[in-house]
Amino acid sequence: MSKPRLQATYRLRVEPGQAAHRARLLAIEQSIEMPPEAVGDGRVLDEVLARVETVELQPDGRSLARLSIACETVCEDAGQLMNMLFGNCSLQPEVELVDVEVPPDLARAFGGPNQGIDGLRRLTGAHSRPLTCTALKPIGATAAQMAALCRAFAQAGIDIIKDDHGWANQGSNPFAARVAACQRTVLDANAAFGRRTLYAPSLFGTQAQMQRQIELARGLGVAAFLIAPMVCGVATLSALKREHHDVAFIAHPALGGACRIDPPALLGKLFRLFGADAVIFPNHGGRFSYDAKTCQDIARHNRAPWHGLRPALPVPAGGMSVERVPELKRDYGADCMLLIGGSLLIARDRLAERSRAFVAAVAEPTPA
Amino acid sequence: MSKPRLQATYRLRVEPGQAAHRARLLAIEQSIEMPPEAVGDGRVLDEVLARVETVELQPDGRSLARLSIACETVCEDAGQLMNMLFGNCSLQPEVELVDVEVPPDLARAFGGPNQGIDGLRRLTGAHSRPLTCTALKPIGATAAQMAALCRAFAQAGIDIIKDDHGWANQGSNPFAARVAACQRTVLDANAAFGRRTLYAPSLFGTQAQMQRQIELARGLGVAAFLIAPMVCGVATLSALKREHHDVAFIAHPALGGACRIDPPALLGKLFRLFGADAVIFPNHGGRFSYDAKTCQDIARHNRAPWHGLRPALPVPAGGMSVERVPELKRDYGADCMLLIGGSLLIARDRLAERSRAFVAAVAEPTPA
Repeated sequence: MSKPRLQATYRLRVEPGQAAHRARLLAIEQSIEMPPEAVGDGRVLDEVLARVETVELQPDGRSLARLSIACETVCEDAGQLMNMLFGNCSLQPEVELVDVEVPPDLARAFGGPNQGIDGLRRLTGAHSRPLTCTALKPIGATAAQMAALCRAFAQAGIDIIKDDHGWANQGSNPFAARVAACQRTVLDANAAFGRRTLYAPSLFGTQAQMQRQIELARGLGVAAFLIAPMVCGVATLSALKREHHDVAFIAHPALGGACRIDPPALLGKLFRLFGADAVIFPNHGGRFSYDAKTCQDIARHNRAPWHGLRPALPVPAGGMSVERVPELKRDYGADCMLLIGGSLLIARDRLAERSRAFVAAVAEPTPA
Repeated sequence: MSKPRLQATYRLRVEPGQAAHRARLLAIEQSIEMPPEAVGDGRVLDEVLARVETVELQPDGRSLARLSIACETVCEDAGQLMNMLFGNCSLQPEVELVDVEVPPDLARAFGGPNQGIDGLRRLTGAHSRPLTCTALKPIGATAAQMAALCRAFAQAGIDIIKDDHGWANQGSNPFAARVAACQRTVLDANAAFGRRTLYAPSLFGTQAQMQRQIELARGLGVAAFLIAPMVCGVATLSALKREHHDVAFIAHPALGGACRIDPPALLGKLFRLFGADAVIFPNHGGRFSYDAKTCQDIARHNRAPWHGLRPALPVPAGGMSVERVPELKRDYGADCMLLIGGSLLIARDRLAERSRAFVAAVAEPTPA
C-alpha cells in the first residue's frame, strides 16, 4: 500500500497544450529538483518525486494541476511544508498555489488551533454571537494613551482588544511597559464593569524573543496574542502554539497576501493547520481587494471539519465599520469575530459611545 | 533637525490622476494605519506618520511613490522592517515595493554580512575568480549516497557543496546523520586532495531548532549554512548571524520571489542587510524568469558600497550549466559564486569529470 501524500493544486498560466509538460516540470521542481533521468535510486523516483495526478483545463484557458507530494519531504515542519508547497515555484510567475490537502496523520502532527472557536468563546465568555475586536492605534501612542483606549473599549464590552500589527518594541512605548499598562487597565475595567475583555499584544522578532514576550505577558494574565506568520515564519507560530496550550493566537496576514498563494489556501487552511485560533483577513469592500467569494472561502476553510482540527475563528477586517455589522453577521454568521479599528477611533470624543454601538450591533439579533 | 528616516519606493498601478492620493493612503497604511484626522497627538502626525516625499509618473503609466518611514517604527528588528515596508500593502495588488534605503545608523544596527565576499574567499581559499558551488540532490538520497557525491565534488575542487534547499530532517536521512557523513567526507577529501571545500547544510524549522543545528554542525567544523529567510522569517537570519560571527550564511530565495517586492530590493539589499554572506538568485535563462537586468541589479546591490556593510556574494543559479560559465563570468565578474547542481548530476558516471570541467572553466582566464 502506498503512503498517504500531500495534495497540492496549482494554477498554471500556460498554453493549454503546454500544461501537462509544465505540470511535470513543477513536480520535479517541488520535490527532487533535478532531472529524473539522473536519479539512480528507484525509491526516490517511486516515492520522493512528486506526481502529477490530474491536469484540467479551466474555462479561462488556464489549467489546474494537482500534484501529490511525499509527506516524508515535509518532516512535520511548518516551514518545510511551505517550502515544498511553494518554495521554488514562488519564483515562477506562471504558477500559483490554489489549494492544499494534507493526510490525517500530518494534520494531527501539526495539530491546528489549541483554542479554536470554542476556546475563544470560553476565554471571552461570548456565546452564540460574533465576537468583537478592535485595535490599539496609532503606533507612536504612549502607554497612557493606549490604556485610556483600553478602558473605553473594555467598558463598552468589546471582547478582544489587540495591538495594531505595527506595534513591536518602539522606544517611545516598549513592549513590557505597553503590555503591563494595557493588561492592568483591561483587568481593572473587567472588574469594575463586569466584563471579560481580553488584551492581545502583538508579538515581534524571533521565536526566542516571542517566547520571552509570551512569558512576560502570561505572568500578567494575558491569554491571547497577535502574530504575523508570514513575517516571523510559520514554524515559529507552530512551535509557540505547541508550547503554550492555554493561550490563543490570532494570525495577522501581513506580508502574506501577495505571494500568489490563493488566500483561502493560506489564510483559510495553512494558518489554521499551524495553530492560529483566529485568522484576520481583509474583508471585501474595505481597504483591500479580496472579493466576497474569496472571503467566504477563507471563513469556510477556517471552520469546516478538517481531520478533527479545532475550527479557527475567521476575522473579517481591514476598513470595516459599525454600519456594516448587520451585513457582516449575515455574511459570516455567529462563528466569527468582527474587527473594527480606525472606524471607532475616528469618533474621538465619542469613542466610548461608538464602541458601545459596535457591541450593541453585534449583540442584536440578526433580522432574518 | 529631523530624525533620519527609511526611504521606501513603491510602484503604484493606478490611474496617473489617482497616484498622489493613493500614495497618501499608502503612507497611512504603512505607518499609523488609521485616519490621521482621528489622531490627537501632534508628535505622531509629525514623526510617526509616513510621509509622501515624491510621486513620479513613469513612461509606462504607472507611478513611483517614495515614502519616508520613521525608523522608530522599525525597532531595529528585521521582521518589523519587512512589516513596515510591505506588511499590509502586500495585500494590495496595485502596490509593489521597488526599493528601500536605510539611514546609516539602521544599517549599522542590522550589521549586514559577518563574512561577506572577503570572508567567503578566506574560508574557501578561492581568490580572484568566481567561487564554485553545487548542491546535494535529490532529497530522498541516503547519507552514503550524499557522501559519495561530496567526495567527487570535493576532489574536483568545488568550493562549496550545499544541501539542496529541500533538505530538512527527512526520516530516511536525518540532519545529524547527513551532516556528520557529508562533513567527514569533505574533510577527508580536503586532506587527501589538498582542497579547502566547504560543506553547507540546509537549516530548517524555528530559530531554536536552527540554533541547535548550527551548534551540532559547528562541533564538526562546519563553517557555512544554507538558510531561506522568507521561509524562516528574516528576523531568524538576523538573530543567527548576530550570534555566530565566524560562519557564513548563504541565503536561498524560496518563498521570496513572488511577493511583489522587486528582486533587487529583496535579494539585493534586504537579505544582505540582515546578514546573508552569499545570496542565491535565479539567473536569467534558467528555470526561472528574472531578466538579465534584474539579475545584474541583484548582483550590483549585493556588492555596492552601502553604509560600510560587507558586500555579499551574488550566486546566480537555477538551471545553470558548465557551458554557460564563460558567459556567467563575463556577466558577474570574479566576485560571485557559480552554483551548478542538476547539470552536474545528470552526467552520472561522468560526474567527477563534469565537476572538474566546472572547476576548470571557472579557473580559466576570461577571454577579453
